[in-house]
Amino acid sequence: MHSDRTVAATYLGIDLGGGEIKAVALSTDSQVVSRQRVTTAAAQGRDAVLARIASLVSSLSAQLRAQGPRGTASVRAVGVAAPGVLNMDTGACELLPAFTPEWTGFPLKQQLEERLRLPVFVINDVRAATLAEHVCGAGRPYRDFACIAVGTGIGGGLVLDDQLYFGSRGGAGELGHQTVVPDGPVCGCGNRGCLEAMASGPAITRRAREAADDVHLRRLVGTDEPTPKQVAEAAVAGNRTARDIYAQVGQLIGLALGNVIVTLNPQAVVVGGGVSLAGEVLLNPIRREVERRTVVFTWERGGVDIVRSPLEGEAGAIGAATWARLSDA
Amino acid sequence: MHSDRTVAATYLGIDLGGGEIKAVALSTDSQVVSRQRVTTAAAQGRDAVLARIASLVSSLSAQLRAQGPRGTASVRAVGVAAPGVLNMDTGACELLPAFTPEWTGFPLKQQLEERLRLPVFVINDVRAATLAEHVCGAGRPYRDFACIAVGTGIGGGLVLDDQLYFGSRGGAGELGHQTVVPDGPVCGCGNRGCLEAMASGPAITRRAREAADDVHLRRLVGTDEPTPKQVAEAAVAGNRTARDIYAQVGQLIGLALGNVIVTLNPQAVVVGGGVSLAGEVLLNPIRREVERRTVVFTWERGGVDIVRSPLEGEAGAIGAATWARLSDA
Repeated sequence: MHSDRTVAATYLGIDLGGGEIKAVALSTDSQVVSRQRVTTAAAQGRDAVLARIASLVSSLSAQLRAQGPRGTASVRAVGVAAPGVLNMDTGACELLPAFTPEWTGFPLKQQLEERLRLPVFVINDVRAATLAEHVCGAGRPYRDFACIAVGTGIGGGLVLDDQLYFGSRGGAGELGHQTVVPDGPVCGCGNRGCLEAMASGPAITRRAREAADDVHLRRLVGTDEPTPKQVAEAAVAGNRTARDIYAQVGQLIGLALGNVIVTLNPQAVVVGGGVSLAGEVLLNPIRREVERRTVVFTWERGGVDIVRSPLEGEAGAIGAATWARLSDA
Repeated sequence: MHSDRTVAATYLGIDLGGGEIKAVALSTDSQVVSRQRVTTAAAQGRDAVLARIASLVSSLSAQLRAQGPRGTASVRAVGVAAPGVLNMDTGACELLPAFTPEWTGFPLKQQLEERLRLPVFVINDVRAATLAEHVCGAGRPYRDFACIAVGTGIGGGLVLDDQLYFGSRGGAGELGHQTVVPDGPVCGCGNRGCLEAMASGPAITRRAREAADDVHLRRLVGTDEPTPKQVAEAAVAGNRTARDIYAQVGQLIGLALGNVIVTLNPQAVVVGGGVSLAGEVLLNPIRREVERRTVVFTWERGGVDIVRSPLEGEAGAIGAATWARLSDA
């Protein structure tokens, strides 16, 4: 798919997910002018994944050449967003939990630059998504905001003083690893009671499965293992159990966001990730809990905006391309 | 008290506390060259308090004239730190909970400038203390750190990218109003289970009072209402109840700091305020809990430093003077 815009698209963004690789070509005014996606096939090993990235870059580049005015649509650089810890100095992968161990320590930036013969800039996927919200998403009106992405895991990012904030080692924004229930279930990270362990997509599915006494919910969703989307649809259809699940999950997210808000006094929080597609069923309980937990800022009048990402799953790739543009400057 | 340094001290800092007003004269290299303190007498009303501030400024200025080389020690500006919400644009008090209601909305900067005939810059007291840690305290080695001040209340501040960070309305750093026990006791702010309601100085006294069955503790401290300092001394002397109180309080502070750390990925946290004088009895449980709650950053090796403020109650005044220096530039 491509538009008939004539603006030269000079940066590509790759969102390297555990299941799918998404790629976009971004115009200089942050419009997606071309997009493609393929399955990651992570199990086939690192080289196969790198070959898929290279193939996406070739294919998007060819598309741009075909569609742009002669010579103007050359690709300047490629941004790659990955779900884990990237070393911002060297461009190596420190830790990609969703991938095979051969990725740990792998010099991703360097190897891709050799293969693609283009400058490559790597970034954590949710930090990239936060950047996308800032340049062309729900974060555009704000100078200071936090972004939380609720999906299979829960990640986040911060824009402070109009800039993506990384912290001392690139780890700033790990909002999913806030402790919301001190003695709660063990999280993948090893801590107990992390927000991610209690309010992510899998936690919503687990809560629905455990609500086995609600025959009505099971009939509505048609399965014992409903997706967060199915549970959201049941909630919108008026199922009380499904609404309660989103109310509980929203309350936990709101509690964590309340702690972020009293710490950073941002103008807004952007809620993204697959689970955010539930919309107001999720956002309303978040807003209620945030209001309750941040009364110390009542003097501010107006409070903090809690808004949903409009980028529909493309935030990571758009942010990766934006990161390439900013880093290449 | 004054030193025989000959460096010109050009900025005064006033720490307007509920009980005491502390004032310092700061040399250009951030050394305290003169200090004074008086009781606030807040109950006598706003004009009486302002007169005391003016009198401190006159007296420190006279001292500087007497001690500095001719002409070099003139005061350039005055910083005033106050315990509450200050409007950073107008210099008015939005809310000073420890003072009479006549302070709400009072144009502090403007009124003091007229009275003192000097530029005045106002700032929240714990944000000021954070700045003091950055220029001459425990935060000096760090580019990114959080500061938490544990005293009658619990406040905080953030230094990010080598600068004091205010957030969208000057409220960034309200670490004491993180929710650590969702259904905990009601806090002064109106929320339930804030860190401030559970781990401040008064909470330590309350915990000691409630440990009425420990006759040994009562004999050690000699009172039913021991100060945090008395409880700390009993802990150092080996009293099990007193140690447990600091372990519980340290654990709650560590839980809140863990949430700050996963959010901001700072290099360090500086712990200040009167309660921090307890030292390792408090800091060790904080460190243990932080380590447990921030395992998501284990890849970082080294982790985050948890260090105690060396500024012994003068951080607010030093920070106020520093704020005046930075704002006057």
